[in-house]
Amino acid sequence: MMGRMSSKSTAKRADALRSIDSIVQAAADCLGRNPEASLSEIARAAGVGRVTLYAHFASRAEVVDAAMTRALDRGDEALESVDLTGDPRLALARYVEAGWHLVDQAQALLAAAQRELTEARIRELHAGPAARVETLVTRGRAEGVFRTDLPISWLVNVLHTIMHSATEEIRAGRLTSDHAAAQITATVLAAFTPPGTPVPDQGLRATTP
Amino acid sequence: MMGRMSSKSTAKRADALRSIDSIVQAAADCLGRNPEASLSEIARAAGVGRVTLYAHFASRAEVVDAAMTRALDRGDEALESVDLTGDPRLALARYVEAGWHLVDQAQALLAAAQRELTEARIRELHAGPAARVETLVTRGRAEGVFRTDLPISWLVNVLHTIMHSATEEIRAGRLTSDHAAAQITATVLAAFTPPGTPVPDQGLRATTP
Repeated sequence: MMGRMSSKSTAKRADALRSIDSIVQAAADCLGRNPEASLSEIARAAGVGRVTLYAHFASRAEVVDAAMTRALDRGDEALESVDLTGDPRLALARYVEAGWHLVDQAQALLAAAQRELTEARIRELHAGPAARVETLVTRGRAEGVFRTDLPISWLVNVLHTIMHSATEEIRAGRLTSDHAAAQITATVLAAFTPPGTPVPDQGLRATTP
Repeated sequence: MMGRMSSKSTAKRADALRSIDSIVQAAADCLGRNPEASLSEIARAAGVGRVTLYAHFASRAEVVDAAMTRALDRGDEALESVDLTGDPRLALARYVEAGWHLVDQAQALLAAAQRELTEARIRELHAGPAARVETLVTRGRAEGVFRTDLPISWLVNVLHTIMHSATEEIRAGRLTSDHAAAQITATVLAAFTPPGTPVPDQGLRATTP
């Protein structure tokens, strides 16, 4: 009897986990295409009913939060494989190259998050990537290649801000996706250079004006 | 008879203009304190009824647009008096000093605009300030003090993006308003420095870490 009940509730729990997982995946997909995707669309894409969706998520904000959390967890796993050792300036260029693709792919989802979640929550969800940059900036400062006259938190924010602003420039038709990583890197490396020392030349081709 | 009719309609028109002006001013004030201020609150602050407000503005977005337009027109007038001649780097520092105060004051209104207006419309409303920076960047490039390896539009965007990100840092409790202009200037001057040449030292005090 106990055995049957417990295996029944185990099965129910497994069902619930599968439903939640399908909803979060569908939310990441749908909101990743269209930040205004409705909860009905998301439920349909997940192959569950609206009632099931509402059984697991109290609001649209909770669905967006779960989709954002998944995207950032996956993104942070991808960043894990980026080599951030060696010359901090070259490590930064590699981080931007990898991070930019993640930001570019997650644009629509981030737009949904900016409507539904607080600035503080979005910042909290970025804690993983922010910690990676913080470690790199700290090392670059210790090695004398990044500036120490501005707070570390400010430099981390400058990098992420400029990365995100590139998506706006692309939407405005003033930047192409294939030039973005090089422009972001050139800008951020200069912004991080200690006053009195020369801005590194990354051998970018001229894109004037 | 004609005379009376025309003076009547002139008076009606003058009334309408006064109402519109009061509503736009009240919207700028109310949304400037709280980006979620309701149209009822705005009508009340303007001393008009909701019916009058809806007679002149079809939607919340139209009210926000009018308030943003007024704030940016006033802001652009204030920037008109900033001396942007002489060394382009010092001119940029003066622009940031003045522009930062405007951005800081208009934070809540901008938050309302970001919810109600498109990115393209917000960009369009910033055309005045953007043109000033564009002229300054172009001159700085011609004089060899600003980089030419990145597009002018990108550099203008970097300046405004970093300026706006400072408001987030202040809300997150990681920057104080009185340090903001100096940090923005130090960051942007470095970002604008041509590769191979030293980042100017603006004699900022160290704010490590």
